[in-house]
Amino acid sequence: MNSPTQLKILSAVWRNPGLSRSELGELAGLHVNTMTRTVDALIRKGYLREGASGQSGVRGRPKIPLEVDPARTCVGGIAIAAGGVEAVAMNLLGQPQGEAEKAAASNSAGIAKAVSRLLGGLLPKNPLALGVSVTGFVDPVSRRILWSSAAPAAELDLAPLLARAGETPVALNSEIHALGMRWLMKHVEAEHDDTLVVTLEDGAVGASMLIAGRPNRGCVLGGNELGHMSLNIETARCYCGGVGCVERVFCTDFLHRLGGRGSLGEAFAEPALSAPARQIIDLVALGVANATVFARPHRVVVAGMPAHNARFRDALERAWRRRLPAVFRERVTLSWYETKATLSAETSGWLAIASVLSGSDGRAWT
Amino acid sequence: MNSPTQLKILSAVWRNPGLSRSELGELAGLHVNTMTRTVDALIRKGYLREGASGQSGVRGRPKIPLEVDPARTCVGGIAIAAGGVEAVAMNLLGQPQGEAEKAAASNSAGIAKAVSRLLGGLLPKNPLALGVSVTGFVDPVSRRILWSSAAPAAELDLAPLLARAGETPVALNSEIHALGMRWLMKHVEAEHDDTLVVTLEDGAVGASMLIAGRPNRGCVLGGNELGHMSLNIETARCYCGGVGCVERVFCTDFLHRLGGRGSLGEAFAEPALSAPARQIIDLVALGVANATVFARPHRVVVAGMPAHNARFRDALERAWRRRLPAVFRERVTLSWYETKATLSAETSGWLAIASVLSGSDGRAWT
Repeated sequence: MNSPTQLKILSAVWRNPGLSRSELGELAGLHVNTMTRTVDALIRKGYLREGASGQSGVRGRPKIPLEVDPARTCVGGIAIAAGGVEAVAMNLLGQPQGEAEKAAASNSAGIAKAVSRLLGGLLPKNPLALGVSVTGFVDPVSRRILWSSAAPAAELDLAPLLARAGETPVALNSEIHALGMRWLMKHVEAEHDDTLVVTLEDGAVGASMLIAGRPNRGCVLGGNELGHMSLNIETARCYCGGVGCVERVFCTDFLHRLGGRGSLGEAFAEPALSAPARQIIDLVALGVANATVFARPHRVVVAGMPAHNARFRDALERAWRRRLPAVFRERVTLSWYETKATLSAETSGWLAIASVLSGSDGRAWT
Repeated sequence: MNSPTQLKILSAVWRNPGLSRSELGELAGLHVNTMTRTVDALIRKGYLREGASGQSGVRGRPKIPLEVDPARTCVGGIAIAAGGVEAVAMNLLGQPQGEAEKAAASNSAGIAKAVSRLLGGLLPKNPLALGVSVTGFVDPVSRRILWSSAAPAAELDLAPLLARAGETPVALNSEIHALGMRWLMKHVEAEHDDTLVVTLEDGAVGASMLIAGRPNRGCVLGGNELGHMSLNIETARCYCGGVGCVERVFCTDFLHRLGGRGSLGEAFAEPALSAPARQIIDLVALGVANATVFARPHRVVVAGMPAHNARFRDALERAWRRRLPAVFRERVTLSWYETKATLSAETSGWLAIASVLSGSDGRAWT
């Protein structure tokens, strides 16, 4: 599967399931012969299948709809995070094939061993791509983990591990960019826009700035560090060395500093939001608004712990909107990403799916 | 001048002045016949010229170096800003050909008239491109000015004005992205990186985030609004509606709030920085650090009023670096852009030069 035409057609079917060969040919601007030959090759390889022929198509012949074959396991996802490594094989629709395999690892040697073992057992035959996500920072050239809560003590060289993938293209990125791409591939209508995806968890705030459908790259491989923008306020000192970091504000410890009780999740679940809970929402909204004002995305998407909580959502959205200059207030939309599977092997697999289906213009992913 | 090959060669000579036809052919991967034909066409049209033949080249024949012909006026720049419109014709090296023409205008009708008049008189014969910069926000689709200090009272439709440029491609962007592109085209070695260009003027702070050599686009045409990120501090209310905006901190009014005297420029020029001046530097450094942490650029470039002031520079850089997590502190560089010509017609002209020399991959500019 190296032909650009095959990838183009596969991508067209993925984006427009149910179209016939001739409809696809028109859409992709391909000659009917090329089209038929390519589709047949993709069916033979198991990537596509013909659906039930329903309505009649051109010139009275039955229209045979094409779709991605969900039985074809052709990508893999690996997540390297604090505590361990997780891997899963998936089809091109993002459905995991079987349970994710997990391996505990708390240091560089453990991670190396776990990735190696999972890579050995996981990969389907001739996979199209492998998505690997890492918590923390990776040098984009040497592919060394520079700093990660997954291996806080030492640098870890991913290059020899990833070399085990052989010829399979590896899409390596931060776990939060993987989540961003997962959202985007489920909302492909947004892929020419700029989108800011934010995750809010107790003590962990991250962001993925997607620019025209590509994760913002930067000088190190990592997420957009919304969590370490400072809100110019006294908090506990952050592990990054700073004070006032957004993720030191969005945490139970800061709730207690403000006189609140229980955990952050509990505070947001109260029937009426307490003053400390409201203050935290206001401050986090300020952080998200600052990122919005700087990057001017078309939309902001918020995921994580409080995305399921209507009261929190309303309060955050109102506070965020109040902070925006009018020109952005009228234009930038805010929506919620209520996903249970956030940072995981399955999410990493979407890095692979995105690189197969959107990477064919040759622009580098990482 | 529509041939991609001609633009490719023009760009290669611009980037590598002094190379011979055969050296260029090797660099561009073109057959010697194509090369010779294209170069001769470009010389005939006046874009290139042969330099003095010096050292001998391949096979003993004299090496004839090629260079961009500075006598060829082929781009134009127009700046639409508060108070008026300014226009200038330039060669491809960015040198203005004659004085910039200026026309005062304080409202939409005045701007329309001024742009129209300047466009009529300014454009050289068969120009390659026109760069137009606007202060404020422009709708990227309709090309209406949404809000600008140049025409605060009403929306202004640029489309009919720009239509006067006829077939000439127009690169339209914010004035601060124009400054960013001007810096980048003078530092082309950085064009595959991400660069954050910041301008600091009394009461006006802007930013241009250049992503792999392209101005960050966003949902509206405008600069990256570093000036309206909030530092969570009491300031005068900003015209954007917010409080604590970076540009409300970096101004004489805030200096006075802190008990300082004179203007901001004077405060930074004192032999020893006063406490209020230091406090303002610390706060602006926090704003720049927040943008750095979010966008993770390879470098930050600071222009504007204090770029000439060694004491200010040292203090800002130290405060900025202190705010960064270690992984960025070690990797992101900070440099100063000591340019007198900041936001001007000449700077706008660089939008045109950049679109001619770097836009040939078909990626949209605006």
